[in-house]
Amino acid sequence: MESLSKALRISLIQMKIGKNKLENITHACNSIRKTVEKDKPKVVALPECFNSPYGTKYFNEYAENIPDGDTSKALANIAKELNVFLIGGTIPERDNSDNKLYNTCTIWSPSGDLIAKYRKMHLFDIDVKGGIRFKESETLSAGNKLAFLELDGFKIGIGICYDIRFEELARIYRNNGCDMLLYPAAFNMTTGPLHWELLQRARANDLQLFVATVSPARDVSSEYVAWGHSMVVDPWAKIVRSAQDGEETIVADLDTTLVQKVREQIPVSKQRRLELYDTISKFDKQN
Amino acid sequence: MESLSKALRISLIQMKIGKNKLENITHACNSIRKTVEKDKPKVVALPECFNSPYGTKYFNEYAENIPDGDTSKALANIAKELNVFLIGGTIPERDNSDNKLYNTCTIWSPSGDLIAKYRKMHLFDIDVKGGIRFKESETLSAGNKLAFLELDGFKIGIGICYDIRFEELARIYRNNGCDMLLYPAAFNMTTGPLHWELLQRARANDLQLFVATVSPARDVSSEYVAWGHSMVVDPWAKIVRSAQDGEETIVADLDTTLVQKVREQIPVSKQRRLELYDTISKFDKQN
Repeated sequence: MESLSKALRISLIQMKIGKNKLENITHACNSIRKTVEKDKPKVVALPECFNSPYGTKYFNEYAENIPDGDTSKALANIAKELNVFLIGGTIPERDNSDNKLYNTCTIWSPSGDLIAKYRKMHLFDIDVKGGIRFKESETLSAGNKLAFLELDGFKIGIGICYDIRFEELARIYRNNGCDMLLYPAAFNMTTGPLHWELLQRARANDLQLFVATVSPARDVSSEYVAWGHSMVVDPWAKIVRSAQDGEETIVADLDTTLVQKVREQIPVSKQRRLELYDTISKFDKQN
Repeated sequence: MESLSKALRISLIQMKIGKNKLENITHACNSIRKTVEKDKPKVVALPECFNSPYGTKYFNEYAENIPDGDTSKALANIAKELNVFLIGGTIPERDNSDNKLYNTCTIWSPSGDLIAKYRKMHLFDIDVKGGIRFKESETLSAGNKLAFLELDGFKIGIGICYDIRFEELARIYRNNGCDMLLYPAAFNMTTGPLHWELLQRARANDLQLFVATVSPARDVSSEYVAWGHSMVVDPWAKIVRSAQDGEETIVADLDTTLVQKVREQIPVSKQRRLELYDTISKFDKQN
């Protein structure tokens, strides 16, 4: 029973997202309640941009203050009601101090307190010929702080979607002691089949930690069609759970002892040649 | 015809390796001659440890000076005879100045000159329960220099086998302008199925460059059973060519224009947040 006692159960909610913000929030809260009552996870996570359609023209309209907006209040309340850690996907955030918009993940404690906030650090500006063109920077600004959720010594670092392409950010989370990286993310029908699974397995393997993603469910009628396939990958880079493309909550029991086992058996973290190279962090670590 | 004129043809020789050094060298040279005459590649590459069985107890016996040993002479001669660039896999190298042993890759010009020499930088010391245990550092020392092959502005960086696990080394090669990474490598029946393809696709995708590996052919009667599956991956992380596990030479035409195309369409290299993080290199770049 030892391994069971060290298992961390996490629910990832791959939900459909529409144009009605209140309905999106209600649907998220109902989905959280459903998995908490049925599966009793310690952590629940929502997808990227779960209260708004994903598109630069929507962000200003749907943006809210954090933690004073309706979405924050709903997430705080449901986390407290259900006594669960909640990684609240992302929402378009309006910062009153600079009037800028961000793509922001909030993390809530079982008492309904805001533990941390992460603003997407690498904005999604790409132009793949014959595939996807998107320019988040038309309306969003980029964040510049790391964010963590610590649970009984198990440390989760947060990134958002396109951030997963930047291996140096992941390395810095690893060097800060992370056992897992979690990315609310909405890849699309071009980048999804190309790189979605690869990026998660790459980060998991290079850094020997768990990686999870939470995507919106695919909606072919929406302007931006999400790839789906929310996923959990273990430190061997094996896929623990994977959703299909529709609405689905995946529940995974993470064997947290695996992190140390993998790091002992293939001890790359001790074998880095720090006299020859290193990754330097210039982050303010006081988030 | 523009793309053809920018294609770089490369042959990767996945050969069987036995205990007779002279036979190994002869077999390598015959295989090089065969693919050059048939396929007319610009570059030919051999696998890791191609003149010696792979095992710490063999390295001292099979080790040679570079470029004065028999293997170096044979590689210089065949490169010159066939007028081809030759990435000479690796051999156990004895350095007379310090009497240490290294796992070393040599690169030869079509005039038979030694262009560069790369010594494995991360020694293969792992102990996977129920899988593979190996400790190269029992007899080998680690290198500390990068090595490059430049062909008409197309720059190839060299690593060896276990080096591919270290994403910071690959990042430094990329930051030094590499369009491709080539790793002579002998993964095994534990790490091969787990991580061989993943690591190549991860490096190719994160750094948007070509990645190639050259493995020995699998020989189930040998003490160390190589995985095989020599491979070329393009900057989209797509597999261009892959060998099976037996003796096989794979020939790939690399569309060198793809490097720039991928980097323009998903411009991650320009989107790194260098004010927040960076990978620093302490290498002496004057190899």
